[in-house]
Amino acid sequence: MILHSYFRSSTSTRLRAALNLKGLSPRYQPWHLRAGEQRSQRYLALNPQGLVPALELDDGTVLTQSLAIMEYLDEVHPEPQLLPRDPMGRARVRAIALAIACEVHPVNNLRVLTHLKTEFGADEAAAAAWFRHWVAETFAPLEKVLTEDAETGRFCHGDTPGLADCCLYAQVLNNARFGVDMTPYPTINRIFENQQALEAFAAAAPMRQPDAET
Amino acid sequence: MILHSYFRSSTSTRLRAALNLKGLSPRYQPWHLRAGEQRSQRYLALNPQGLVPALELDDGTVLTQSLAIMEYLDEVHPEPQLLPRDPMGRARVRAIALAIACEVHPVNNLRVLTHLKTEFGADEAAAAAWFRHWVAETFAPLEKVLTEDAETGRFCHGDTPGLADCCLYAQVLNNARFGVDMTPYPTINRIFENQQALEAFAAAAPMRQPDAET
Repeated sequence: MILHSYFRSSTSTRLRAALNLKGLSPRYQPWHLRAGEQRSQRYLALNPQGLVPALELDDGTVLTQSLAIMEYLDEVHPEPQLLPRDPMGRARVRAIALAIACEVHPVNNLRVLTHLKTEFGADEAAAAAWFRHWVAETFAPLEKVLTEDAETGRFCHGDTPGLADCCLYAQVLNNARFGVDMTPYPTINRIFENQQALEAFAAAAPMRQPDAET
Repeated sequence: MILHSYFRSSTSTRLRAALNLKGLSPRYQPWHLRAGEQRSQRYLALNPQGLVPALELDDGTVLTQSLAIMEYLDEVHPEPQLLPRDPMGRARVRAIALAIACEVHPVNNLRVLTHLKTEFGADEAAAAAWFRHWVAETFAPLEKVLTEDAETGRFCHGDTPGLADCCLYAQVLNNARFGVDMTPYPTINRIFENQQALEAFAAAAPMRQPDAET
């Protein structure tokens, strides 16, 4: 397997955490997003969407969209599970993962912030304020849900990490780059600390990747 | 079951199509997004994220995030299936669904367009151009994938409609409101016509809902 990735990509981070939890170690192939390598003919031949991550299987099949890849991994390599077995638990874990994957990340990723700058004259400060706004819109209700639900444990759902944790971990790391004030989110912070203490998560962090830059 | 919905919400449309495909008819409870009803205390008690749709089960459990709800429905009411049985097919269908659910819709929903207007002075024309830009970024590669993949049939994956079709159908309907030129997407148009010919999709359209407004 080959993992097509960029060290700083939050969607790549969440997939790296999932691969680590599963004990899978694909070959790491970096694509430099800031240099536009994801729009090269070579990369578009792998993934026409021009987005990382992508997971290339040994038969050459290329899987795209981090959540679809994580669900695939959970079906093909079921242990340890990223999703609980009961449909209600699965719905809860997926809803937390999707709250981050649909409501926070897409509005805040590199290409949207760049478009905001080029088309609407946003400067760095305005782009960062945009980023923080959309984090708060989702993190406030997420903090409430994670604090109040009996299903929350050491991790997002019970005491073992899963799909939602991979997404939350990557987002919290990303928040730090844009100066998000995390003090309103004690439960999220507690879960994040439990994630960071696990090598599967720590090793997924951007600065631990071969293409890391300071 | 109670479906908490807004007629024009694209995420509600995709869930309505899935419910119709499953032959499920929950009670319809509208929340007027333009009037801000999704931010009322009464709605936030159901879904702290303040987003529609939400599906309230008979035991009072409230499921959120349209894709998580659709996956739940597919697990609890397996026939007809929204996802194929093979992991590779499931990964493909989920990737198409997520390309729309993560890359197009979140950047273009009502609250983002409103924020663009209030914070960056975008007028209606600029907001519509923003909308069309993000549609094209995803629809161009999606058209390529749907045209070239042997797995594409009358619908996104084979000849029976599923999860990806629900998302695509709702997005194409939404595109029409913002003047998206659909001529570059003949395969998507063909699939959309096949969807529209089915009552499950037609009955999910905004103008067929009890809270529809012109």
